[in-house]
Amino acid sequence: MTEQEIIARYFFRELSSNYIAQSIGDDAAIVNIPPGQQLVMSMDTLNANVHFPYSSTSLSIEGKSAWHTSAFDIGYKAVAVNLSDLAAMGAQPIWVTLSLSLPELDTAWLEQFSQGLYSLLDKHQVSLIGGDLNHGPLSITIQAEGLVPSGKALLRSGAQAGDLVYVSGELGTAAYVLQQLKASDADKIDESHLCKLLPALTQPQPQISLGLALQGIASSCLDLSDGLLHDIQRIMKASQVGMTLDVQTLPVAQIIRKMVSLKEMARLALVGGDDYQLCFTIPATKKAELITIGKKLQVSLTEIGLVTESQQLELRHNPLENKTSLNGFEHFHKNNC
Amino acid sequence: MTEQEIIARYFFRELSSNYIAQSIGDDAAIVNIPPGQQLVMSMDTLNANVHFPYSSTSLSIEGKSAWHTSAFDIGYKAVAVNLSDLAAMGAQPIWVTLSLSLPELDTAWLEQFSQGLYSLLDKHQVSLIGGDLNHGPLSITIQAEGLVPSGKALLRSGAQAGDLVYVSGELGTAAYVLQQLKASDADKIDESHLCKLLPALTQPQPQISLGLALQGIASSCLDLSDGLLHDIQRIMKASQVGMTLDVQTLPVAQIIRKMVSLKEMARLALVGGDDYQLCFTIPATKKAELITIGKKLQVSLTEIGLVTESQQLELRHNPLENKTSLNGFEHFHKNNC
Repeated sequence: MTEQEIIARYFFRELSSNYIAQSIGDDAAIVNIPPGQQLVMSMDTLNANVHFPYSSTSLSIEGKSAWHTSAFDIGYKAVAVNLSDLAAMGAQPIWVTLSLSLPELDTAWLEQFSQGLYSLLDKHQVSLIGGDLNHGPLSITIQAEGLVPSGKALLRSGAQAGDLVYVSGELGTAAYVLQQLKASDADKIDESHLCKLLPALTQPQPQISLGLALQGIASSCLDLSDGLLHDIQRIMKASQVGMTLDVQTLPVAQIIRKMVSLKEMARLALVGGDDYQLCFTIPATKKAELITIGKKLQVSLTEIGLVTESQQLELRHNPLENKTSLNGFEHFHKNNC
Repeated sequence: MTEQEIIARYFFRELSSNYIAQSIGDDAAIVNIPPGQQLVMSMDTLNANVHFPYSSTSLSIEGKSAWHTSAFDIGYKAVAVNLSDLAAMGAQPIWVTLSLSLPELDTAWLEQFSQGLYSLLDKHQVSLIGGDLNHGPLSITIQAEGLVPSGKALLRSGAQAGDLVYVSGELGTAAYVLQQLKASDADKIDESHLCKLLPALTQPQPQISLGLALQGIASSCLDLSDGLLHDIQRIMKASQVGMTLDVQTLPVAQIIRKMVSLKEMARLALVGGDDYQLCFTIPATKKAELITIGKKLQVSLTEIGLVTESQQLELRHNPLENKTSLNGFEHFHKNNC
């Protein structure tokens, strides 16, 4: 198959959108931006064996263990991590571009990969409008773009002393699952528990509706990818504020609570990474409004602390004495699989 | 160095632009699109040993032969191939995003790479506003975005029977240089000739000014990356037309003309690839206007053929009988280094 044939078979879809003037098939794509809107864009790459486990000898989509990430999950997650960034800006995602590098032409893999990719794109009515296909080590780069009413984007820089700190959903599940997949059989929890938790790692749900609803409510926002402790300091730095977090309040899944020690629970929630939940601050006066949003969207929202003037991070009820164990991960330094 | 420190040291620049509301430093970048403009975007990846020769043991920027592409040239070319796509749309490039995957932290390499990248960005006043930095096999993905007055983009689909076919600059130089770099010493031309021709391969000039000037003049346009013969058929297909090209008229550099046979010259110009010149069609009535544009911009423009109704490609004065030798290259199938 030629590059054009691969694109036509697995990636091209007829579009009907007011935004998209020229999709796949020319030197570049063209879109229309409505007046009063700003364009928001995020670019994230997933590399094999850095961002997901991968073996060239087990490309099969019927991998015997979940440890060998399926092509479907790779496609899904490549979209998810990018939409999560747009969610954190309060933007409505509209289109993506994809650069896919493949070591070999495996049509079964491509079929599954494109299904995973489109499963999440379709859910949020996002179009794939262009990109690039190359020979090379397996690597997926997606740029997701969306719109936000001018001046309404959720930045990291608006938190003020007195604001309340929130996270959506649960923390540490992806990290716990990864740990379980890596563990020797003897140490593993039973399969039914693992199956319930697995989607947090393989198919995280970008919090797009929540991000949109937080326009005009949140004073700062980001998505949690490198661990709460690491990411929250990005808000502190951008906003030039401090924070007091209550470690006991951090939302960890019930199944995990029953399995692990308080220390392990704190570690998972603080530095686990790969959560793709939103962490945000709101003025205390917006609390009732936020609770209504959570109920309406059926998203659990947990108050975990307070913004302070100190420019320091204080952890209350923290069972972990050793601060050095609390480093978040950096994709460049450490493989997360 | 952390990811943030690498970005701060090598890639972050203070910006002053009416377009850019949020650059590097949040979950995503934000830009303003002026009314009456459409957004044009192109994404291209360069993979080590697919798009440029690379050896992990010779990462040195002082590579002994040009065969080991310098980090500067890699940075430059990653920008060039993307800006060339925008040029082919008649768009004004405004910003880019970069995803860089690196096998190791080599500060000398990063320094040179960012210099190469910025040398071309600065030349066209294009800003780097976001992206991603990862561990992984050396790979560079850039998305370049620009603006075009609504409805004025140069597509592949507007060519009509009777239109004249043009190319900018010279064809086949990059392919000739690549051939020379690969050749055994005995077969090589002298170094001074090679030095004059080398920039066509390592630092191609995206034809941005020409693309902009062709708004309202060209009926179709694309940039030549996979070889004239391959690329021109994309215009034919999109426009549902045929073409008659005169192979004798194809512009090949004087130095090369003196070195190679007529057959080799035709082969280089037709299927060489990596030209990054514009190939476009104009109504015959616009010919005088086009000549004025070429003079003003000091870009050589060569009339190479005619658009026909036949939907066939006819090559006149073609010294190559064997059509099978005339396949353009596909990055997915064949390494071009």
